[in-house]
Amino acid sequence: MKTVVWQSLSEEQQNAVLERPAISDGANITSIVSDVLNQVKQDGDTAIKELTAKFDRATPDSIRVSEQEIDQAAARLSDEMKQALEQAHKNISVFHKAQKAQPLSVETQPGVVCELVTRSINKVGLYIPGGSAPLPSTVLMLGVPAQIAGCRKVVLCSPPPIADEILYVAKLCNIDEVYNVGGAQAVAAMAYGTETVSKVDKIFGPGNAFVTEAKRQVSNDFRGAAIDMPAGPSEVLVIADETADADFVAADLLSQAEHGPDSQVVLLTPSPMIADQVAEAVQQQLKSLSRSDIAKKALGSSLIVITESLTQCVSISNFYGPEHLIVQTKNPRELLPLLDNAGSIFLGKWSPESVGDYASGTNHVLPTYGYTRTYSSLGLADFSKRMTVQELSKEGLKGLAQTVVTMAEAEGLDAHKRAVTIRIDSICNEQLNQQ
Amino acid sequence: MKTVVWQSLSEEQQNAVLERPAISDGANITSIVSDVLNQVKQDGDTAIKELTAKFDRATPDSIRVSEQEIDQAAARLSDEMKQALEQAHKNISVFHKAQKAQPLSVETQPGVVCELVTRSINKVGLYIPGGSAPLPSTVLMLGVPAQIAGCRKVVLCSPPPIADEILYVAKLCNIDEVYNVGGAQAVAAMAYGTETVSKVDKIFGPGNAFVTEAKRQVSNDFRGAAIDMPAGPSEVLVIADETADADFVAADLLSQAEHGPDSQVVLLTPSPMIADQVAEAVQQQLKSLSRSDIAKKALGSSLIVITESLTQCVSISNFYGPEHLIVQTKNPRELLPLLDNAGSIFLGKWSPESVGDYASGTNHVLPTYGYTRTYSSLGLADFSKRMTVQELSKEGLKGLAQTVVTMAEAEGLDAHKRAVTIRIDSICNEQLNQQ
Ligand SMILES: [Zn+2]
Ligand SMILES: [Zn+2]
Repeated sequence: MKTVVWQSLSEEQQNAVLERPAISDGANITSIVSDVLNQVKQDGDTAIKELTAKFDRATPDSIRVSEQEIDQAAARLSDEMKQALEQAHKNISVFHKAQKAQPLSVETQPGVVCELVTRSINKVGLYIPGGSAPLPSTVLMLGVPAQIAGCRKVVLCSPPPIADEILYVAKLCNIDEVYNVGGAQAVAAMAYGTETVSKVDKIFGPGNAFVTEAKRQVSNDFRGAAIDMPAGPSEVLVIADETADADFVAADLLSQAEHGPDSQVVLLTPSPMIADQVAEAVQQQLKSLSRSDIAKKALGSSLIVITESLTQCVSISNFYGPEHLIVQTKNPRELLPLLDNAGSIFLGKWSPESVGDYASGTNHVLPTYGYTRTYSSLGLADFSKRMTVQELSKEGLKGLAQTVVTMAEAEGLDAHKRAVTIRIDSICNEQLNQQ
Repeated sequence: MKTVVWQSLSEEQQNAVLERPAISDGANITSIVSDVLNQVKQDGDTAIKELTAKFDRATPDSIRVSEQEIDQAAARLSDEMKQALEQAHKNISVFHKAQKAQPLSVETQPGVVCELVTRSINKVGLYIPGGSAPLPSTVLMLGVPAQIAGCRKVVLCSPPPIADEILYVAKLCNIDEVYNVGGAQAVAAMAYGTETVSKVDKIFGPGNAFVTEAKRQVSNDFRGAAIDMPAGPSEVLVIADETADADFVAADLLSQAEHGPDSQVVLLTPSPMIADQVAEAVQQQLKSLSRSDIAKKALGSSLIVITESLTQCVSISNFYGPEHLIVQTKNPRELLPLLDNAGSIFLGKWSPESVGDYASGTNHVLPTYGYTRTYSSLGLADFSKRMTVQELSKEGLKGLAQTVVTMAEAEGLDAHKRAVTIRIDSICNEQLNQQ
């Protein structure tokens, strides 16, 4: 890991060391994905079978996974695994249930009632990537909020063969339909629907460059589907002072580094001693990691920054806007009100990132790549939408009429004005008739 | 207006009559806009001045509007106008203040505390279109939530010359900087910054096809800016039963129609009598409108649908997902729990759309073009983001360790496991030393 002293850098150098590497966009990927989308739109299930054979080298018996297969998966899992997944499901449920929005009703002036009501998004699609190891935690992070928001249909796509852990969690989360489909073709199937795969309103979940590009393309098409948030490489930033445990910090940095060679790992500390100790502990711990090759690559672009103070750590962190922010200082909670632009914050030495990745209750789907400036940690709100409602009484309209008429006149909108005056006239006529 | 009887249509015909017209995307616009973005990125203020002269045929003295000019604008406005704008500002403030999120803290299991905290988006940019009449109401709808969310910097762009009403509302909303810039160049300036214009994190507001395309392009660039929501033509759907006042309904349909020739206007009613009366009233009222040419064009693609029942009106409305939904029935509130997929709902005969456009308190920036399935009415949440926080005690981590270790093993992530075990080992060692 490279170590720099913040104050010794020019402003330009400071910006440069925190610059995230550009993601190679590849015009190639754009056109491959657009071909896949067109193929699925045109040929539906047939296209899916062909693309699955071609890209995943798999020919599953059916596109949809049967109830029976899902039950068999559960039977094959160890009790220990089932217990862990259930515990995680419980904690994530508790935290997301607490996010339920209460309906809001306000009388803004006499007789003018304005309300904010929440409705679940009707149909949602969850994408779970394949790969060397299964990702049941991601099913939990997407499936639990969909379940608690009350989405009417929840479907899941994952490249075949789908691991038992994933099928088991799909059942825990009451997911309605599970499909043996991965890659851009899965996104296309959920965005546009096929004979077997249900069309959904919004698609959630991580994936490779093809999945990301497919999500971008369907979200730019109004006949496609909305998506959760922009994707990017995973990141951690640790703020540590001289009271931090260097071994703990090193373990946290490495657990980010092992996610992938493009992971971003940053340590900010006012203590040169901690900087040294962590750098050494990282080298030590790296030796015994099964994914040390991946972690080494990620560490190549990683950074230790020695600052003048904790306050400076906070401003650098706010400027960088990390996906995960770990604070291992004497009084971590004191810093919280100053912290901004982060996906999820881990306070204190007993809160490693891995608890949030799996089972504490918070969601591990987080904005990254600087999107923390404007995007939120995934939560119940992303599976819902807010509508406003208003109801005026006769008196309410009378009290607001002059304001609306004056503004409609200023904006040159006659009919808007008349929608008010025609009602006021009718109230006046009514009153005259009563006299 | 075309009248159809829902039950007499085949399913295919039903879908066809509710189909929204495709928005011509024009490859032409894409490349013009991308040129404008590049020009502004490269030449900053110089590019803005050139583009303003070219597209707006205007050469304002300076890009930024001075405090003095803003004060002079206020002095020129009538008291009646100022009062109306202040009343609207007050109601919109009351409703948006009520949307402030409370921080959330939950102990998901003993010693595991998960929190959801909200932070305002730091810097936001508001775009206000020009045109024949000024749009002070849009400044209110964007400026008030930005102000209440506590955004640290709020800037506004609008094509010169900027109307007095807009400058006055900008002052009411404490907007920090107002710029004489319109079109795609305004979006570019706010997304990338220039010598004069501050770079912002998120851009809000309506605009023509060039502004919409510019927002799309900058939101697809991670060095650009996030945007509020996808754009589309404005829409109203009215559900009316035999108790509705046909003149009121006609006035509401026309106030949508006068927005633009591409406005969508739909009436659903189980009463053939109301259908006839409204059609006639629309023709009558149309005669005396100053914008009758625009309204006539919009009515050309508009629709009256005669249904079998109010229940059927509700399902058609939920399928169509209108931006504005007006319910003029005997018991409008009874229908509310069944209504889904709408931007804003207006209940009862005294709640015309124009009150929501201007001054009741609800926001008039709403998802349209079918995006109501997944997007929300603009509100405080759009000017904020949610971060999660977690803090585990030593006991908390011990209670969760086995679950995290089991899941990390399943996902093949060694370092994630060790970030937990290294801490548990240290707790054990500590306890041994104490014995
Ligand atoms: Zn992780
Ligand atoms: Zn309107």
